[in-house]
Amino acid sequence: MFAMNPMVAGAIEPPIAEADGWLDGLVPDPARPILPMAQAVPAYPPPDDLLDDLAARIRRPGSSRYTAITGVPDLRAALAGHMQDEYGGVLQAANVLISAGCNQAFCLAISALAGPGDEVILPLPYYFNHQMWLDMQGIVARYLPFRPDRGGVPDPAEAALLIGPRTRAIVLVTPNNPTGTVYPPEVIAAFRDIARARGIALVLDETYKDFREEGGVPAHHLFGDPEWGETVIQLYSFSKVYCLTGHRVGSIIADPTFIARAAKIMDTLAICAPHTGQIAALYGLRNLDAWREANRRTMAARLDRVRAIFADRPGGFELAGAGAYFAYVRHPWPGRPAAEVARDLVREARVHCLPGSMFGPGQEDYLRLAFANLGEAALAALPERLAFANAAPSMAGSGHV
Amino acid sequence: MFAMNPMVAGAIEPPIAEADGWLDGLVPDPARPILPMAQAVPAYPPPDDLLDDLAARIRRPGSSRYTAITGVPDLRAALAGHMQDEYGGVLQAANVLISAGCNQAFCLAISALAGPGDEVILPLPYYFNHQMWLDMQGIVARYLPFRPDRGGVPDPAEAALLIGPRTRAIVLVTPNNPTGTVYPPEVIAAFRDIARARGIALVLDETYKDFREEGGVPAHHLFGDPEWGETVIQLYSFSKVYCLTGHRVGSIIADPTFIARAAKIMDTLAICAPHTGQIAALYGLRNLDAWREANRRTMAARLDRVRAIFADRPGGFELAGAGAYFAYVRHPWPGRPAAEVARDLVREARVHCLPGSMFGPGQEDYLRLAFANLGEAALAALPERLAFANAAPSMAGSGHV
Ligand SMILES: Cc1ncc(COP(=O)(O)O)c(C=O)c1O
Ligand SMILES: Cc1ncc(COP(=O)(O)O)c(C=O)c1O
Repeated sequence: MFAMNPMVAGAIEPPIAEADGWLDGLVPDPARPILPMAQAVPAYPPPDDLLDDLAARIRRPGSSRYTAITGVPDLRAALAGHMQDEYGGVLQAANVLISAGCNQAFCLAISALAGPGDEVILPLPYYFNHQMWLDMQGIVARYLPFRPDRGGVPDPAEAALLIGPRTRAIVLVTPNNPTGTVYPPEVIAAFRDIARARGIALVLDETYKDFREEGGVPAHHLFGDPEWGETVIQLYSFSKVYCLTGHRVGSIIADPTFIARAAKIMDTLAICAPHTGQIAALYGLRNLDAWREANRRTMAARLDRVRAIFADRPGGFELAGAGAYFAYVRHPWPGRPAAEVARDLVREARVHCLPGSMFGPGQEDYLRLAFANLGEAALAALPERLAFANAAPSMAGSGHV
Repeated sequence: MFAMNPMVAGAIEPPIAEADGWLDGLVPDPARPILPMAQAVPAYPPPDDLLDDLAARIRRPGSSRYTAITGVPDLRAALAGHMQDEYGGVLQAANVLISAGCNQAFCLAISALAGPGDEVILPLPYYFNHQMWLDMQGIVARYLPFRPDRGGVPDPAEAALLIGPRTRAIVLVTPNNPTGTVYPPEVIAAFRDIARARGIALVLDETYKDFREEGGVPAHHLFGDPEWGETVIQLYSFSKVYCLTGHRVGSIIADPTFIARAAKIMDTLAICAPHTGQIAALYGLRNLDAWREANRRTMAARLDRVRAIFADRPGGFELAGAGAYFAYVRHPWPGRPAAEVARDLVREARVHCLPGSMFGPGQEDYLRLAFANLGEAALAALPERLAFANAAPSMAGSGHV
């Protein structure tokens, strides 16, 4: 066999596929359906009117053709308008690149910024695909400590200490994956100030921005600063907000000079984002404000429910963080590897979630629950499942306190 | 402004976007519509039955969701079956990864093989996006000389001389972009033998395999060798064969161990190929054999037409290569930069094509014409356009011989 790239060999195996592997051989139990909280995928489908529109447009001959590298012009303009309405400031189509999802947006942005040997700062716990791209590109991740004492909000002062001559960016995911934590605007601004002072980029992944508990207020004020383009790179996804995960549409918002740089990579590794997905995303931006807001309220209600559930520490599980989409939970078996706990949890209690260990060092005591995936009935079943898991002999036998 | 990655800065600007820029400000001339031979995009749309099927399936809730990283299982199996039918040997779903287009398939394959400082062998002229990915990844391209004397077929013996300790792959594009040349099976086999003997991969981009003049015969016999997976990595695209350029679907066929490695990168930079595009591709494989064959015949007829046109050297333009999809043409102004010639050609004669210079060093005398994009009427207009260009004062004035 031919030689292969050791940097790719060194990256972890795809986490979701690994977690899905734990379902292999599980005999379905109609009385206890699996609670699917591993991959973040909305439980509800896109609205019918979006699908109707898409089905009609897909027949037009042009819809099957490549779009411009940076995306359909109307979509770029609509997204700029959407962000401007939400965040203030002045944003234009030239600030937007449409990518095939937000994972790709991250890869484009990071590779436009950094090469092998350069460094990027990630708060712990990190989003695993971010770490994987850095590993496979030979870029060194420097970690900001996890601060459960600050509700999972990282400390900008600690970031300043990590910046060296090879540092190219600070990456923030807010609302956070895996903790759900929404970083306060003033913390985000403090990170921006540090990045600007040191001449590096602040990369902000806002995949979950539309699921914040607090509606009607901007998540930050970065775009209100006329000089934002000198420092800020925003990443976004159409996957969760309009339930378009399979359509692969996301975006980068940045200075046009940076967009041009990212477009070189986009041309090479994608040519363009899928045309039909772009049509669907545009429909969402133009027509689904009320639908989006209704889902935000639903998610806020689910978050309340999750908080109420964990107030009782069902089965000894404790909330370490919760916010948009995710809860980050301390399991009752300290010292036991999180991957083992997660695997046994789905086997014994049919609760499918991800182990903290997938999100970086020091996370063995945690599990990530994508509670937003669950409807009412499924959420109601969660406490007894967790209690049951704790009582299960196979799980109780291993370092349980 | 923050610092950026110099390797990305060093890659060329996206060529198609540059060529499209030459259209800016051109006043449409109804008597002389532009002959669009720059980007390779089929002139005809996908068949109605494919679009009807897609429009129906898109409404199903599951169609909007992520697929497995390596693709929809039925599509993987169907593609394995298709290739097995065409090439012989035994191919299985486990040999297949579905990517978001063949450009992405190349990026995945090369990055799974090679890292910064490693080397990859490309015949000249190369496909520009291949060179761009190598440049942006810090991988060194080693060039096989262009052999117009061999009809554009590169010489395996010359490849053997370029292999050193850092060489990770030989890349062949057959049918070739930009020359259209179809490499003979025995030449492909000779490259495979060299790659195998030296423990490196042979990467074969077969995006245009369905447009070969000769129908019903396999393009090579690589898959008939039970050990093929030790050496061969095949890349393919659904873009041109089923007119799905905007849907972004392509593939890698390789040994399952290599597929697993490529899947790590796929997970990170794409999560999965777009679901609707995969549905369309599966429809094509299952239902469009006759349609595909009819298009192949049409293309073969167009190739005959192109050969007849250039037999007369219209305007002094000469065929240097022609085959599947493309003609590679020597323009009548030796010494003039090809990009200038191509730009003036679309301004003066409304013939839109790409300069040889986009395909590597030593290509200034050539232009790439994607003749497959043109219908009958447009093709009929080509000779007088070329003759007109040659007579145009702005073009004649510059080194014309
Ligand atoms: C933080 C974060 N960023 C990016 C993504 C990728 O989303 P997509 O590529 O589907 O847009 C996800 C998906 O789970 C995510 O959680
Ligand atoms: C040789 C070759 N490979 C790959 C591609 C990319 O095709 P896609 O990414 O649309 O599948 C092209 C498209 O022009 C090509 O010419």
